[in-house]
Amino acid sequence: MIRVALDAMGGDHAPQAEIEGALAALAALPGDFTIQLVGRVDVIEAELARHPGADRSRLECIEAPDVVGMAEKPIAAIRKKPKSSLMIGMGLQKAGQSDAFISAGNTGASLAAATVVLGLHDGVMRATVATPFPTADEPVVVLDGGANVDCSPRELVGFAYLGTVYARDVLGKASPVVGLLNVGEEDEKGTAMVKEAHQLLKTAPGLNYVGNIEGRDIVAGHAKHGHIDVVVCDGFVGNIVLKFYESVARLIVRLVKRNAPEILERDDVREVFRILDYSEYGGAPLLGVKGICIICHGASSPNAIKNAIRVAVHSAQVGLSQHIGAEFAAIAARNA
Amino acid sequence: MIRVALDAMGGDHAPQAEIEGALAALAALPGDFTIQLVGRVDVIEAELARHPGADRSRLECIEAPDVVGMAEKPIAAIRKKPKSSLMIGMGLQKAGQSDAFISAGNTGASLAAATVVLGLHDGVMRATVATPFPTADEPVVVLDGGANVDCSPRELVGFAYLGTVYARDVLGKASPVVGLLNVGEEDEKGTAMVKEAHQLLKTAPGLNYVGNIEGRDIVAGHAKHGHIDVVVCDGFVGNIVLKFYESVARLIVRLVKRNAPEILERDDVREVFRILDYSEYGGAPLLGVKGICIICHGASSPNAIKNAIRVAVHSAQVGLSQHIGAEFAAIAARNA
Repeated sequence: MIRVALDAMGGDHAPQAEIEGALAALAALPGDFTIQLVGRVDVIEAELARHPGADRSRLECIEAPDVVGMAEKPIAAIRKKPKSSLMIGMGLQKAGQSDAFISAGNTGASLAAATVVLGLHDGVMRATVATPFPTADEPVVVLDGGANVDCSPRELVGFAYLGTVYARDVLGKASPVVGLLNVGEEDEKGTAMVKEAHQLLKTAPGLNYVGNIEGRDIVAGHAKHGHIDVVVCDGFVGNIVLKFYESVARLIVRLVKRNAPEILERDDVREVFRILDYSEYGGAPLLGVKGICIICHGASSPNAIKNAIRVAVHSAQVGLSQHIGAEFAAIAARNA
Repeated sequence: MIRVALDAMGGDHAPQAEIEGALAALAALPGDFTIQLVGRVDVIEAELARHPGADRSRLECIEAPDVVGMAEKPIAAIRKKPKSSLMIGMGLQKAGQSDAFISAGNTGASLAAATVVLGLHDGVMRATVATPFPTADEPVVVLDGGANVDCSPRELVGFAYLGTVYARDVLGKASPVVGLLNVGEEDEKGTAMVKEAHQLLKTAPGLNYVGNIEGRDIVAGHAKHGHIDVVVCDGFVGNIVLKFYESVARLIVRLVKRNAPEILERDDVREVFRILDYSEYGGAPLLGVKGICIICHGASSPNAIKNAIRVAVHSAQVGLSQHIGAEFAAIAARNA
């Protein structure tokens, strides 16, 4: 039985979105799992009271009196508020009382708390946020999605391994195709950092590395290599491209609304924008820490929370964190 | 009378797209201008023969026997082929025989040729490609668009001034709003390079700098500051975001085609995708060189070429290059 701890106080629409998402997950998703709602129990109970028919047999409430605000400085927040829903929720995994943690709260604080509380697997230089990008077919995992703005070439290689294990375990790819985000395909393209990362990736064993890819290849696939499963970049570029993507989808909806509003009522057109909706993918896993931690968008809807729970359960069931530990142990053994 | 030199041999669809675009510009655009088609005159004449009714009174052919290929190394190509359409076309401005140059050929070679042949205005550290990004309203100018992958903070400040003069002269903005592309608004966000650029931009005189902006603010406008006119970033990020944007528009067309193909026949829906079509904006000006140089996409259509001619004529008429020279002379005088 997988136990998923959910930060009930994080996110712009907490606790409503979190609790609705949790109840929807319990009602709809397959799999043996329980949900631990972490936060101020009086607030959680008041919200649960609005769903009198809900089955609470697989739902537990865990008291955490403090809340980390969206604008708080990460390190200061986790030090000053050890009894926040974030720190208590994260601590459950460390204590062996939970198998995964999800938060739509302060992203920086979640990253800091995961690294401090859970720790990194041996050999992992930095934990990374793996963000799923919608495409016409299966999502592409872009990492880093914003946790690490200044990266070294060796850190990018680490991201390639982390993304590969994730794409294998959670997306079911036998041999995930990895590309390095760059401004052209040739060896000499890119910044000094990216050029060095490309050279390291070319000789890194155990990766299905296809080389440099361009901005157009992320969601369209590469002309020569076809669909890309894992895109590696620093968190500065990853974060900008991710936020840009969300805004382009919204821009197109806005333009269609202005020009041809009635077609947005059509199910076949709505389906197009549903495909582009990040909330279908259920948040971004933080990879490299000893445990499962899913970071959700601050504006997460109940549907996004439900899908994050699905990803968390799946990740815990397949042993994602153990596999990452084994992968990095194998790398260390090869290099020894 | 503005004289626009057009590289008739550059681009994936040369010389057809170039010549059709030139004839369309002469037929449709206002303004007193002539076009100088630069390339192998026999090839150009053979193509012109396919348009027997065309008015050739404002059209001149200038012989250039060589062609720079799309895959050639820029510096080697401009050294080895001084009689290429690129080098001869660019040289016309230097010799006072032309007022602007347009090419859809090898972008790197165009950049190198412009810098070598025309030279930079005093005080300009590096020339930059200003790429127009379609939005729901007016385009946003993103620079650098890929000419300079590794940039210093001071170079980004230079791009802010170049973009400001361009937005004022060509887009008609009285006081263009400048944002620095970053992963968050706060002073402490971003890479070391971007943090320093932000501090320099905050105190740079004569700029309407609103601070850090995020990926979502490029095409959507900023929640607090509204529409952004000029977005500053290094060419690595700019190139990736530009190519990504083009691919997202194509992805959405592909998804609509799969789900609801018949709506793409509707004029109001086609208009949405027309708004997102970069070719409407007519190429990207190279700013900072002594002259007017417009870089077009290799795959430019006749319509894209026509619009590039419009931008070139307008830029020359308003004295864009002279204004950039004056702006940088004023900066030097302030710092003296």
